[in-house]
Amino acid sequence: MLKLFYAPGTCALACHIALEEAGADYEAVRLNFREAEQTKPEYLAINPKGRVPALVTGQGVLTENVAILAYIAQSFPAAKLAPLDDPFAFARIQAFNGYLASTVHVNHAHRVRGTRWADDPIAIADMKRKVPETVGASFALIEREMFKGPWVMGETYTIADPYLFTLGNWMEGDGVDPAKTPKILEHRQRMADRPAVQRVVAAEKA
Amino acid sequence: MLKLFYAPGTCALACHIALEEAGADYEAVRLNFREAEQTKPEYLAINPKGRVPALVTGQGVLTENVAILAYIAQSFPAAKLAPLDDPFAFARIQAFNGYLASTVHVNHAHRVRGTRWADDPIAIADMKRKVPETVGASFALIEREMFKGPWVMGETYTIADPYLFTLGNWMEGDGVDPAKTPKILEHRQRMADRPAVQRVVAAEKA
Ligand SMILES: N[C@@H](CCC(=O)N[C@@H](CS)C(=O)NCC(=O)O)C(=O)O
Ligand SMILES: N[C@@H](CCC(=O)N[C@@H](CS)C(=O)NCC(=O)O)C(=O)O
Repeated sequence: MLKLFYAPGTCALACHIALEEAGADYEAVRLNFREAEQTKPEYLAINPKGRVPALVTGQGVLTENVAILAYIAQSFPAAKLAPLDDPFAFARIQAFNGYLASTVHVNHAHRVRGTRWADDPIAIADMKRKVPETVGASFALIEREMFKGPWVMGETYTIADPYLFTLGNWMEGDGVDPAKTPKILEHRQRMADRPAVQRVVAAEKA
Repeated sequence: MLKLFYAPGTCALACHIALEEAGADYEAVRLNFREAEQTKPEYLAINPKGRVPALVTGQGVLTENVAILAYIAQSFPAAKLAPLDDPFAFARIQAFNGYLASTVHVNHAHRVRGTRWADDPIAIADMKRKVPETVGASFALIEREMFKGPWVMGETYTIADPYLFTLGNWMEGDGVDPAKTPKILEHRQRMADRPAVQRVVAAEKA
C-alpha cells in the first residue's frame, strides 16, 4: 500500500487529492509541523530533505510534487490523470507543475520561510513585504498565458488541477486578491465541488 | 525541427546537452542576456516568462527544465535517456530534477537575481551572503543521499546527468568548494569527457 506523508495546509494536498482521484489504495500519514516532526530523525530517515510530500511505495520513497503527481498518473492509467501516450501533452503538464514548484511555491515561501535564504531581520521583513507582488504576478501569468479552462489543460482534468488548487488556496494568506484572476477563482470552486477533493479536505481537517 | 532558446552559462545547457545526446535534429538559438533579449516582445511571444530554456516543437512551445528534459527522453526513446517503462524509476529522475529546479537553482538565484524576491539593498546583500551556505547544503545533500554513481541514477546515464552537471558548474561562482562533494566533482569530469558535452560546450562558447 502507498503511504503519503503530509501536513495539513501544505503543498502535499495536491498529491493527496491525486491519490484519491486515482482510486489508489493508500494511507495518509499526518506530520505535526508545530512540533517540527518533519525535522525529526524518524522522518529524515524517510525524506532527508525534511519536507512533505513524501510517498512511500513498494519500490522506495518518492519526493517532489512534480515527480509524485506524474508517478500517480502513470501508475493508475485508468484514472486518466495525464495524457500518457503523447510526450508533448505530458510535458505541458510537467511544465505547468514545474512552474508551480520552482516559481509560485518559491515566491510564496518567502513569506513564512524567509530564513531559508536570509538571516537579517530587515531582509526577512523585506521579502515578506514583496510576496503579494511576486505571488500576484505568478498567478496573473497563469491566468493570462497558461490556464486553458475549464480545467488547467482544457477539457480534461489532470494532475495539474489539484496542484493549482493547492497553491491557489494560499492567495489570500499571501495578500493576493483572487478576484483579479477570475478563471483561477472559478477553478477553485470547480475543484471544491469534486467529491474526491471534498473527501481529502475533510480527512486533512479531521 | 526542434528549436532551443538558450543563453550561455545558464540552466538551458542541460536541455542543450540532452538534445545532443539524443541525436535530435535541432537548432540552438542564442539569446543575449546582456542586452536583455529575454525580456523583449519577440521572445516574450515565445516564452511569456522571459526565461530560458524554451523548446519550440512542432506541437507548440515547452518551458521548464524538468518538462523539456523528460520530453526529450520520451521523444527519443532509442537514446535511452530515462527508464520509460517503469513509473517509479522515471519518477526518481523527475524527483532529482525537481529538486534541482525548485531548490538548488532557487538557492543559487539568490546571488544574482535577489531582486526577484526583495528590493531593499540590505536584503539583497544578505541573500547574497547566505548563498554559499544554502547552495553548499543542497549539494551536500545530493552527495550524501541522492547521487548513486557513476551517474546520478547509477549505472545508466539519464537526463538527470546533464542537469546536475549544469548547476554543479555554478558551485565555484556561488562560493562553494567542489572538493567537499567529491562524487559530484568526479561526475563533472566524467561529463566533460563525453563527446556530446564537448560539442555543446564548444557551440555555446563559439
Ligand atoms: N519542491 C518541493 C517543496 C516541498 C516543500 O517545501 N514542502 C513544505 C510544505 S508546503 C515543507 O515541507 N516545509 C517544511 C519545512 O520547511 O520545514 C515539492 O514541490 O515537493
Ligand atoms: N524553473 C525554470 C527556471 C528558468 C530560469 O530561471 N532561467 C534563467 C537562466 S538560468 C533565466 O532565464 N533568467 C533570466 C532572467 O531572470 O531574466 C527552469 O527550470 O527552466
